[in-house]
Amino acid sequence: MQLPQIKNLSKLLGVKNPKAKAGMPPGTLIFMGDKLTEKSQVDLISYNSQDVIEFCSKSSEDVIKQLSPDRVNWINIDGLHNIKLIEEIGEHFNLHPLLMEDILNTEHRPKSEEYEHQIFFTLKTLYNLTDQEITYEQISFVLGSDYLLSFQEKEGDLFESLRERLRQTSTAKNRARGRGTDYLFYRLIDTIVDSYYIILERVGERVDALEEEVYDNPSKETLHSIQQLKRELIFLRKTVYPLREALSKVTKGEYHFIKKDTLPFFSDVYDHTIHVIETLETYRDLVTGLTDMYMTSISNKMNEVMKVLTIMATIFIPLTFIAGVYGMNFQHMPELNWKYGYPTVWGVMIITCIGMIVYFKRKKWL
Amino acid sequence: MQLPQIKNLSKLLGVKNPKAKAGMPPGTLIFMGDKLTEKSQVDLISYNSQDVIEFCSKSSEDVIKQLSPDRVNWINIDGLHNIKLIEEIGEHFNLHPLLMEDILNTEHRPKSEEYEHQIFFTLKTLYNLTDQEITYEQISFVLGSDYLLSFQEKEGDLFESLRERLRQTSTAKNRARGRGTDYLFYRLIDTIVDSYYIILERVGERVDALEEEVYDNPSKETLHSIQQLKRELIFLRKTVYPLREALSKVTKGEYHFIKKDTLPFFSDVYDHTIHVIETLETYRDLVTGLTDMYMTSISNKMNEVMKVLTIMATIFIPLTFIAGVYGMNFQHMPELNWKYGYPTVWGVMIITCIGMIVYFKRKKWL
Amino acid sequence: MQLPQIKNLSKLLGVKNPKAKAGMPPGTLIFMGDKLTEKSQVDLISYNSQDVIEFCSKSSEDVIKQLSPDRVNWINIDGLHNIKLIEEIGEHFNLHPLLMEDILNTEHRPKSEEYEHQIFFTLKTLYNLTDQEITYEQISFVLGSDYLLSFQEKEGDLFESLRERLRQTSTAKNRARGRGTDYLFYRLIDTIVDSYYIILERVGERVDALEEEVYDNPSKETLHSIQQLKRELIFLRKTVYPLREALSKVTKGEYHFIKKDTLPFFSDVYDHTIHVIETLETYRDLVTGLTDMYMTSISNKMNEVMKVLTIMATIFIPLTFIAGVYGMNFQHMPELNWKYGYPTVWGVMIITCIGMIVYFKRKKWL
Amino acid sequence: MQLPQIKNLSKLLGVKNPKAKAGMPPGTLIFMGDKLTEKSQVDLISYNSQDVIEFCSKSSEDVIKQLSPDRVNWINIDGLHNIKLIEEIGEHFNLHPLLMEDILNTEHRPKSEEYEHQIFFTLKTLYNLTDQEITYEQISFVLGSDYLLSFQEKEGDLFESLRERLRQTSTAKNRARGRGTDYLFYRLIDTIVDSYYIILERVGERVDALEEEVYDNPSKETLHSIQQLKRELIFLRKTVYPLREALSKVTKGEYHFIKKDTLPFFSDVYDHTIHVIETLETYRDLVTGLTDMYMTSISNKMNEVMKVLTIMATIFIPLTFIAGVYGMNFQHMPELNWKYGYPTVWGVMIITCIGMIVYFKRKKWL
Amino acid sequence: MQLPQIKNLSKLLGVKNPKAKAGMPPGTLIFMGDKLTEKSQVDLISYNSQDVIEFCSKSSEDVIKQLSPDRVNWINIDGLHNIKLIEEIGEHFNLHPLLMEDILNTEHRPKSEEYEHQIFFTLKTLYNLTDQEITYEQISFVLGSDYLLSFQEKEGDLFESLRERLRQTSTAKNRARGRGTDYLFYRLIDTIVDSYYIILERVGERVDALEEEVYDNPSKETLHSIQQLKRELIFLRKTVYPLREALSKVTKGEYHFIKKDTLPFFSDVYDHTIHVIETLETYRDLVTGLTDMYMTSISNKMNEVMKVLTIMATIFIPLTFIAGVYGMNFQHMPELNWKYGYPTVWGVMIITCIGMIVYFKRKKWL
Repeated sequence: MQLPQIKNLSKLLGVKNPKAKAGMPPGTLIFMGDKLTEKSQVDLISYNSQDVIEFCSKSSEDVIKQLSPDRVNWINIDGLHNIKLIEEIGEHFNLHPLLMEDILNTEHRPKSEEYEHQIFFTLKTLYNLTDQEITYEQISFVLGSDYLLSFQEKEGDLFESLRERLRQTSTAKNRARGRGTDYLFYRLIDTIVDSYYIILERVGERVDALEEEVYDNPSKETLHSIQQLKRELIFLRKTVYPLREALSKVTKGEYHFIKKDTLPFFSDVYDHTIHVIETLETYRDLVTGLTDMYMTSISNKMNEVMKVLTIMATIFIPLTFIAGVYGMNFQHMPELNWKYGYPTVWGVMIITCIGMIVYFKRKKWL
Repeated sequence: MQLPQIKNLSKLLGVKNPKAKAGMPPGTLIFMGDKLTEKSQVDLISYNSQDVIEFCSKSSEDVIKQLSPDRVNWINIDGLHNIKLIEEIGEHFNLHPLLMEDILNTEHRPKSEEYEHQIFFTLKTLYNLTDQEITYEQISFVLGSDYLLSFQEKEGDLFESLRERLRQTSTAKNRARGRGTDYLFYRLIDTIVDSYYIILERVGERVDALEEEVYDNPSKETLHSIQQLKRELIFLRKTVYPLREALSKVTKGEYHFIKKDTLPFFSDVYDHTIHVIETLETYRDLVTGLTDMYMTSISNKMNEVMKVLTIMATIFIPLTFIAGVYGMNFQHMPELNWKYGYPTVWGVMIITCIGMIVYFKRKKWL
Repeated sequence: MQLPQIKNLSKLLGVKNPKAKAGMPPGTLIFMGDKLTEKSQVDLISYNSQDVIEFCSKSSEDVIKQLSPDRVNWINIDGLHNIKLIEEIGEHFNLHPLLMEDILNTEHRPKSEEYEHQIFFTLKTLYNLTDQEITYEQISFVLGSDYLLSFQEKEGDLFESLRERLRQTSTAKNRARGRGTDYLFYRLIDTIVDSYYIILERVGERVDALEEEVYDNPSKETLHSIQQLKRELIFLRKTVYPLREALSKVTKGEYHFIKKDTLPFFSDVYDHTIHVIETLETYRDLVTGLTDMYMTSISNKMNEVMKVLTIMATIFIPLTFIAGVYGMNFQHMPELNWKYGYPTVWGVMIITCIGMIVYFKRKKWL
Repeated sequence: MQLPQIKNLSKLLGVKNPKAKAGMPPGTLIFMGDKLTEKSQVDLISYNSQDVIEFCSKSSEDVIKQLSPDRVNWINIDGLHNIKLIEEIGEHFNLHPLLMEDILNTEHRPKSEEYEHQIFFTLKTLYNLTDQEITYEQISFVLGSDYLLSFQEKEGDLFESLRERLRQTSTAKNRARGRGTDYLFYRLIDTIVDSYYIILERVGERVDALEEEVYDNPSKETLHSIQQLKRELIFLRKTVYPLREALSKVTKGEYHFIKKDTLPFFSDVYDHTIHVIETLETYRDLVTGLTDMYMTSISNKMNEVMKVLTIMATIFIPLTFIAGVYGMNFQHMPELNWKYGYPTVWGVMIITCIGMIVYFKRKKWL
Repeated sequence: MQLPQIKNLSKLLGVKNPKAKAGMPPGTLIFMGDKLTEKSQVDLISYNSQDVIEFCSKSSEDVIKQLSPDRVNWINIDGLHNIKLIEEIGEHFNLHPLLMEDILNTEHRPKSEEYEHQIFFTLKTLYNLTDQEITYEQISFVLGSDYLLSFQEKEGDLFESLRERLRQTSTAKNRARGRGTDYLFYRLIDTIVDSYYIILERVGERVDALEEEVYDNPSKETLHSIQQLKRELIFLRKTVYPLREALSKVTKGEYHFIKKDTLPFFSDVYDHTIHVIETLETYRDLVTGLTDMYMTSISNKMNEVMKVLTIMATIFIPLTFIAGVYGMNFQHMPELNWKYGYPTVWGVMIITCIGMIVYFKRKKWL
């Protein structure tokens, strides 16, 4: 069974072609990712504890008109290639040029940063694209006093079940509706970190499968798989380590938009991130061990091959020599004329053979 | 002799299936462990320096009625799968939703955290299930001003001898009864950390046994055992390292429920934890060395095999050649007609053989 | 295809011949680099939001006359071998003797330092000299209140597109013109850091190419290439790590010439430097893994060779023995006279041969 | 020559059987070491700058009567198995139950701790028991305002020369007598740290001897010795690292019983400890390198074996083939009837042989 | 060509025989180095911006008379074995007993320490003794308000060119004369650190030479050289790392005898030390890589040997078998009587041979 992998890793581990960017002044808005979708749209979910309004449009203006300051306004933008849309949003919410640039640079490392009127947070989501493939996408958040912007590379995300929950009227399931944008922000981050666990589980399964393969039947492909897994773990570390840092800043209460009673929730996500990191380190240790184990398995195999060769050669070389001796054509070889010469030679050869086998038994080679 | 191992490590080192959890709002109470027992019950031991009351029920209400604020109340809950029970307890003691969630997540890493009205502490106990198997269980503690809650996955624990001691009336053995909940809390943690020593001793025995095996008779199974031991050590590190951190917070006197004269006792447990960690690191170093030693043992063995092959081949190949020469059928081969041709050839062959053996002796191959 | 490399690495990784310098008093101005160019000249670009003046001369006096204190004055000096020129500049701008010395020492590690009237910053630029060769050069900056000095080893640099932009009158493209020397300083550093990405991309391509080579066809040259790549990565680390430190000091706002609203831009460059470092570490991990993989590939190959030898020897050695037996010249060998003796022996030999092949199939050697 | 080793390392590196201890309440006094001596006694040396009184008894009471508060009172207790004695001492000097427990736990890691009325310090002494064996012992110190308690596992120690010095009346050699208990305490610690140098020197000699052995004649026993040395270094690190920590606390002047003008002396011991640690790390690096060197030596040897085999086989296999050809019994083999057929074949064989040897010379195998 | 090495490394890396010292009270003056010279003398250079006085004597008294407090007095003592001389100097300048002890302990690690009236600084000089040998010596400095003491193991040092410069009257070259003892102190340290570069250059050359040797022609001696180089690098690290620490204390301005305007100069030396350390780390990385490369080179060679053996054996074993078959003496072997039997067999053998060669070509073994 083929377990799911992260594709295109050599690209992921490297850096994007920076030629397009080098020498540009800061704040020049260029979309640096691959265009993953044709569509681009803006969704608004605006709610308070009483009701929920949903609105969706291709134009930012339409959406901005719907905003009301005393509600929680979650504006989700799909499709970063639509630079004009991003610019309009940026202008309305007064986003810093560097912040805008970071949103569009899909190779950015996870980070959080506080600007005068917003908190900026960018990280990666990871999810199973198909059974064989794990894909990833960058999501950036901008948290203001009464709005939360989320920028995604393409439509379709992990938040559908959260949206469903927000829409429900039953208050039991809607503790979220009574809280502010910072709590919504937490819920989105939490959903993303939870999704890392699913990926980790896949990786764990592959580590176990590889360990068995190395132990039972190491081949050249095994080596390739180990190397691929190493690369994926490197990628995951590059994804999760900076996230810890970014969350750490949030949990320390440095950011003024995060209310004090929301902090324990961020501590909780932070704990989960630590858990993810520890599990990654565990896998890293195990995969590093796999290479050694592979080498040892190969050595073991070669040892076995060598033993077979040595046993065969060591048994038959003396016998062949004996046969060779009596194949000589000397005129005066008395043994050749003995009546029982031939059976005697067979006897000698059989005894030699048994002697060798006993010797190998003692050496525990047989 | 089979030394005891920790079972199910590939599961332990990984993460629990998070699908059930992903997307749930925080505070949703789902038991994430394996249901280890059918029973669930609540025990109360309530004492002061005068007397001890014990009470046991399946209902939380019954137990809560028995609490009296001027005594030390130790409420022990067995069986985390009974979510309703946990919820009732949580409601009465006013536990934070995230704290409740952490109690039920049996994959949680050890940690301590202070909430407004409680201190939360979660860690793992390790104990020999049978002679061949070490098992582990998560225990969570909630320390309030006059009560201590302990949550265990199933009945049966390490605390029986402590309970026995509390029941005794002789004051000599009951210094504990004169002290508060924080001291009781310390005693429970101390008992758990002490139990780690027993596990460590088992691990140490296995390291020694493996070292001998690698040195004397390395086989494919040895490699497997080394890998298994590495995994167990990784698991133990993941168990003990965060515990140090959690205890460190306690010893720094950051938590208001720990009285100042109880702090030295926590420092003492902290020291034991450091000792456990250092011993783990020692074992880690030794086990890492084992893999190298295994490789070297294998190489040594292959060298020995190669030497046998080389000695046999090098001695007999020239002899067989000589025999081959005199097996040729040329009409004009004067040696064949010599009277002492045959014994001369034997002489040459024996001298060649002795020469080779002397050569090998000099090379110290024999 | 030959991918571009950094040349002369053994020199780069070592230290310049210090004999010329040892024992000299500090502040003695000696050019320690290789003279890369004959020419030496001073360029001035002086601008404010209204206009731009450019001026170029071989004499420092001429340029100094053109300076006006209420504009941004960027003085670029090409050719460090012209010590007299450097000295005149140093005298006019009142540069500290140690600062002067650092400018001329082209082996200096990147650093930033604040002097009473200036900030000093030195770092390396890396660029493709030809398709096959990456070269590097040291650039030093001295930032004063209204001037920025840049010292380069030779003419020709990465800043041409920036100069072009400054010359343009359209305000849209000239946000830079409205800002001070500190912003110009940032733009220069940013351009250099951006250029690192191009080099990194080249390195990444070579890592991938080597990995494929190791996997498919490891040769002695592969080992050489790995070693060369390791050296280049060591060189790059030595170039970028101290730069992070130097930038860190700037971003902390320790330097009084950097205005507060320019700081976010420096944070941005700092982030890029971190990104470069993380990518370098990734490559380092991968290249370290390559050596192991090489060893394993070699072992795999030897295993294959051994198998061929063993199969051949194991099949033919018994057959040769059998043939040898019936080549013996005993008078009484009944088999020799049997009518079907010869075909029977062939039968035995074929059966032995098939037996061996079946055995190897089972062992999965065939 | 057999160089001295530390015995019983597998026990030393592990943990003592904790079963006896687990579940006991804190402060329960149980001697956890091995009873090394039958005797137990208390020695008192009480001095000031004028005179010295020495007193020795089996009973603590007798000694306590001799104490006078305005002198330096050094009470040395030999034999920790005499728990009653320890308890009496503890009671008189008002020692904390946890401190008492730590004195009796001979597996305790080195540490210093301040209690209300005392400083507690525990560490290990190492000394050559015989020429072949290094042994170690735990010593604990309790420093009060006018007394110093030292607890040793058995009689006989490193302090004899110090006692001798204290007894001398010449003031030149008795600067010590004019100073307080803290200075005496320093002198004892200093003597112990000095003794580490002797052990280190022994270890250094063994590292050198092993390196030579690995280089010249690596055997299976060499591997064993390397492993043993690694274990000893691990043990030494576990002994010295925590000591640095413990001394660091003292040198920072945190403890109120250490006078300010004694602090430089403790800094000096601290420096020595750092020196010991650095030397240990050096040995560790060297011993780690030894394992690699061993592997390489083995590989070198195997290479040599392989070359001999290959040369022999490669020379004789073609020759044997030629002989085989002319041993064939075809009726029509014209060469067999040639007059000079036989010498011609010998010629061909000798030329083949010389060709091979030239080939091997070129390959530098001969 | 033999490149220069550091001699006597096993002694350098270890610790001096401490028996002579153990148990001695602190402040006992014993010279712990090897007596490198017979002579011992005291030099004085006393200067201010106007003039320079030089004076040289075997007696400390004579020199002390020449001191004048308003000048810079540099007193250089050669020959630490003359303890009486050191003691007199120590008494006059009121040096702390521990400081005196440190001067005489030539195995002391580099350090700086502030005493009440002096700063103490000890470090090592390294210089080429001959073309083949690098030697080292300990130098200690004591900096007072108006004097600088330097203690050397023997006459002859790196400072001759500095002395020459001080003697010159031309003010242009004598900026040094106008400054205080702290500047002189800086100049001496700077000269020593500069000398490290020369040693580093030698080490770098050897790394490159070894790399080539490992790549082209790895022998047992190569392994020995690598090990020797590793030891030298360990020694150099032990020399330079603590120096960084010692200089760091100076640059932080913690010491009251270093004037504020001399601090940038010490920062400069500190930067050089960092550069030396980074270069050392680079060499360490390269030398570590060499061991792996050596192993790989050996494996490559063994692979080549194996291939030759396999090719020879695989080609000739079947041929020998065929020859053996027709050497059998069966009465009924029809092939033997065929007219073209013999050439046919040759044909078969040549075809087999060609088949094998084609096979090996495909496998790329030929």
